[in-house]
Amino acid sequence: MERLLQQIQFLVEIDKLKTVLRQTRLIDADRRENSAEHSWHLAVAAMVLAEHANDSIDLAKVLKMVLIHDLVEIDAGDTFCYDYAGYADKALREERAAERIFGLLPQEQGREFRALWQEFEERATPEARFAAALDRFMPVLHNLHTGGGTWTRHGITRAQVEERNSPMAEGSVTLWAYISRALDEAEAAGILEDWRED
Amino acid sequence: MERLLQQIQFLVEIDKLKTVLRQTRLIDADRRENSAEHSWHLAVAAMVLAEHANDSIDLAKVLKMVLIHDLVEIDAGDTFCYDYAGYADKALREERAAERIFGLLPQEQGREFRALWQEFEERATPEARFAAALDRFMPVLHNLHTGGGTWTRHGITRAQVEERNSPMAEGSVTLWAYISRALDEAEAAGILEDWRED
Repeated sequence: MERLLQQIQFLVEIDKLKTVLRQTRLIDADRRENSAEHSWHLAVAAMVLAEHANDSIDLAKVLKMVLIHDLVEIDAGDTFCYDYAGYADKALREERAAERIFGLLPQEQGREFRALWQEFEERATPEARFAAALDRFMPVLHNLHTGGGTWTRHGITRAQVEERNSPMAEGSVTLWAYISRALDEAEAAGILEDWRED
Repeated sequence: MERLLQQIQFLVEIDKLKTVLRQTRLIDADRRENSAEHSWHLAVAAMVLAEHANDSIDLAKVLKMVLIHDLVEIDAGDTFCYDYAGYADKALREERAAERIFGLLPQEQGREFRALWQEFEERATPEARFAAALDRFMPVLHNLHTGGGTWTRHGITRAQVEERNSPMAEGSVTLWAYISRALDEAEAAGILEDWRED
């Protein structure tokens, strides 16, 4: 019973992820996306796009990873991927958050969840590399469907977008090839003219 | 390539689930929950609570089911579980929605997703029964943490709550036992006094 109460306390606590706002807007551009619905979208994307992973993957493990990969943001907040100052202490803030949040669970379950999160962060396994590729792919898809989205609003250059997103190829060469072409087209169509640095 | 384009079109389309609002409020009560973040919460609950399923379950299958169980709401809307009129044509509306939405995917993948959704709806397998139990458990948890939530606002009686939620026991006797006790306590504490029918 004590065990179930700890699990329920964890589930109540993580409701807060629904209030952590990301820079990305919904595809209808109406409002900013929150990290809970982003995690859901990633998980469905993993189901749909699994065949495009570079390596053979355990889909169940990818699903678990993407479902919990952002929980640390409940304490640490969402760090915008082009916020280089914010990235300076991101790791430390997130370690502390992982300690507290996964610490709400029964001990061995908390350890299991934390190991999954750590694996995602390290990107050293096929599952983690594919999960990380999706975590880049989906926001780019949102930006492409909202006329440049966060890029144009924050004056992010194409070089920055490439630098940030090219590691996608480590998880899926196919998805990165698609995105590269889509970026070319968007630029050629003048949708992303703010990017031109000349 | 055509295949990948279909998959991406599906992923763009289902972004709309983030705009389908449920009756349930977030646990901080600030706003109504949407069906995408609800699906995420269910999936994490499945990871955390799997040990409380009545039968041995394939967790990966439960995760896939809960992640896509509400996609039909993009066309059919969320039907409040105590809206008895709304339930009259719910099945028909949802069948049509499944046809269109899963039909965006490459054919055999669309069939696989639709079969998962159908399995969830029929509650005939251990995985579907557990997924359905979670789909009842989580909103009850929200209501218990928001002073009665949708029940008090809509004048739902305890008998109605019991009738709606007791099938939870088919998927997890443990979770239903917990909820029954929690309902007793909430009533005893007068939190749910609107329920008294005398």
